Amino acid sequence: MTVVGEFDLIRDLLAKVNQPDGTGNDGQEGVWLGAGDDAAVLDTGRLVMSTDLTVEDVHFRRSWVTFAETGARAVTAAASDLAAMAATPVAVLISVAIAPLEARAVLSELGDGIKAALRELGAPLVGGDLSASPGPVFIDVTVVGAAEEPVTRSGAHPGDELWVTGVLGGSAGAVRAWWEGAEPSPDLRASFVQPKARIEEARWLADQVDVSAMIDLSDGLAGDARDLATASGVRIVLDPRLVPVHPDLDGEDARSLAMSGGEDYELCFISPPDVTGRRSVEFQERFGIELTRVGHVEDGMGVEILGEGDGLDGVSGGFDHFSSDRSC
Amino acid sequence: MTVVGEFDLIRDLLAKVNQPDGTGNDGQEGVWLGAGDDAAVLDTGRLVMSTDLTVEDVHFRRSWVTFAETGARAVTAAASDLAAMAATPVAVLISVAIAPLEARAVLSELGDGIKAALRELGAPLVGGDLSASPGPVFIDVTVVGAAEEPVTRSGAHPGDELWVTGVLGGSAGAVRAWWEGAEPSPDLRASFVQPKARIEEARWLADQVDVSAMIDLSDGLAGDARDLATASGVRIVLDPRLVPVHPDLDGEDARSLAMSGGEDYELCFISPPDVTGRRSVEFQERFGIELTRVGHVEDGMGVEILGEGDGLDGVSGGFDHFSSDRSC
Repeated sequence: MTVVGEFDLIRDLLAKVNQPDGTGNDGQEGVWLGAGDDAAVLDTGRLVMSTDLTVEDVHFRRSWVTFAETGARAVTAAASDLAAMAATPVAVLISVAIAPLEARAVLSELGDGIKAALRELGAPLVGGDLSASPGPVFIDVTVVGAAEEPVTRSGAHPGDELWVTGVLGGSAGAVRAWWEGAEPSPDLRASFVQPKARIEEARWLADQVDVSAMIDLSDGLAGDARDLATASGVRIVLDPRLVPVHPDLDGEDARSLAMSGGEDYELCFISPPDVTGRRSVEFQERFGIELTRVGHVEDGMGVEILGEGDGLDGVSGGFDHFSSDRSC
Repeated sequence: MTVVGEFDLIRDLLAKVNQPDGTGNDGQEGVWLGAGDDAAVLDTGRLVMSTDLTVEDVHFRRSWVTFAETGARAVTAAASDLAAMAATPVAVLISVAIAPLEARAVLSELGDGIKAALRELGAPLVGGDLSASPGPVFIDVTVVGAAEEPVTRSGAHPGDELWVTGVLGGSAGAVRAWWEGAEPSPDLRASFVQPKARIEEARWLADQVDVSAMIDLSDGLAGDARDLATASGVRIVLDPRLVPVHPDLDGEDARSLAMSGGEDYELCFISPPDVTGRRSVEFQERFGIELTRVGHVEDGMGVEILGEGDGLDGVSGGFDHFSSDRSC
C-alpha cells in the first residue's frame, strides 16, 4: 500500500500547473503573492468572484470522461461565471477531495487538465486545499476576475432583445447519449467535455453592444432566462423556434434539449433593440460562433415560452441536480 | 420522496446567513455586489484569499458533532488562514455537496452554524455553489480578507523567537477520545468543535510586536514550524518542554498531541528577541489566552526538536490526511 503526503501532492500540483515559473506566480499582474503561504494576496481594483462545484457521479462519470478533461471542465465551468460578468480572469483557487489510494494518479491527471484550462484563461492557481474523500472525487473551483464595470443580471428593460452565443443542447445531448448506453457524436461529446468560457466574447459584447444584462447558460436557457427576468424585474418572452439547436441533435426532443439542457456555458444576454443585430456578422467573423436573437423583454415578470405545451413540457425548470432524476 | 430545488436551497441559505439584510450585502464595506448574480464583486485594495475543505468521515463524523457545529467550524478553519496573514475578513464563498434526500435538513443546520461564524468574523457570504453528493457531506469555504501588509511565512531571521498563542493538542485529544469510543471532556470537545480564528490577536501582534513570520496551527506545531523554516530559509529549534499542553490532556502522549496534533488553529509566529515577551501580559489581559515562547530560529534548515527520540517519535510529520491512518 502506497501512501503519499498531502503536502507533496499539493506541491506537485502547483509545480505542474504553474510551470514554467515554479511554485509561485508572484510576478503575474494582480497577484502580489501566489500559492504557498497561508493565503494568496491579490493586488487589484474591483474583483469579481464565484465558485463552482464538480462532483463525481453527479456532474460526471469516469466512464464518460478522463480526469484531465474533468479538471479542465471544472475550471472552465467556474470561469464561465466570470465571462457572464464581462470580467477578466485574475486568479483561481481549487479544492480537491480524492480517495487516498488513487490520489496521486487522479491528481496528476486533473492537474494536466487544470493547467491547460488555466493557460487558456491566462490566470494562475493561487491557492487550494486537498483532502481525502471517502469515495467520490470532488472539485471546487473559485475564480477571481477583474472588471471595472461588471455586467449584472439586473439591467434589462422592456423592449430589449434576448440573444445567445453559439449553439445549445450539445452538452445535454451528450449526457443523454451516455445515459442511453450510447456514445455521443464527437461534437456532442466536445460540448460536454470541452466547453469554452466565453471570456473574450463577453468583453467584446460589453464593450461594443451596450449589453444591459447577461448570464452564462449553466442551468439551461429557460431557467437562466427566468433568473435574468427575476433579477431585472421584467418579463422575458422566449421563442423556441429561434433557438440555435446543436446540429448533431435530432429527434423530437432536440429543441427541448436546447431550451432546457444545462452546461453549454454559452452567453445569454440582453441588449437594446437593433444594436446587436448590426454587429452579429462581425462577431461571428471574430469568434467563429453565431449570435442568435431568441426572444425579447416586456413589462411584467417571469418567462413566457411561445407555443408552450407543443412538446416543450417542463422546459422552464432548468437543470437542477436536486429536483430531477438526471442527477448525473 | 421529497425533492427540493437547488435554487430554493441556495436562496434559503443566503437569506438565513445574510439576515437581517436579506439576500445581498451590497452595502457592506468592500462588497460592491453581494450574492445572487453570476459572481460577487469586491471593491477593495490588496486582497488575501484562501480555501479550506471539510469532508464528512475525513474531518468530522456526524456522531461527533452537529451540522451546525460543522458549518461554523468549516468557516472558522478557513478564516484562520486569514488570521495567519494578519488580514481582516471581507467576504466568504461556500460550496456544499449533500445527498439530495437530506439536503434541506443538513443545509438548514449548516446554515445556522455558518451564520454564527460569519457574524463572529463580520464578513458576508457573497457566493457559493450547491451540488448533490453521492454520499458524504463536503463543505469548501473560500475566504477573502484585506491586508495592506500581510504577514507571510517567509520573514524569519536567525536569532528570532518562536511563539504560539493559547494551548495545544486539545483538538487532537478530542479526536483521540472519539476514536477510543470515549467522550472527550467539554473543553477538549470545544477545542475541536469551536476553535477560534485568531483574527484580532493576529492583527494586534502584527501591529505591536514586529512579527516577522506567521502561520496558523492547522497541521500540528512540528509540521507547521517546518513550513515556516522552509519558507524563511532558516532552521527552527523547537523545545517540547516549553509547549503549552491543553490542561485536559494527560498521559504519556499529552505532549506528543500538543506537538503534532492538528487543527488547534492557534497562531505560531516569529518575532525578534525580547520583543514579544515584554508584551505577553498585555496580550493575555486583552485576549484571555497566553503567549508562550516555544523555540528559536537559527541558521540552517528544517526543524530540530530538542530531546527528539524521548517519546516524541513521529511528531515532525504534522497532521496529514494522506499519510496517516487517522484519516478521520
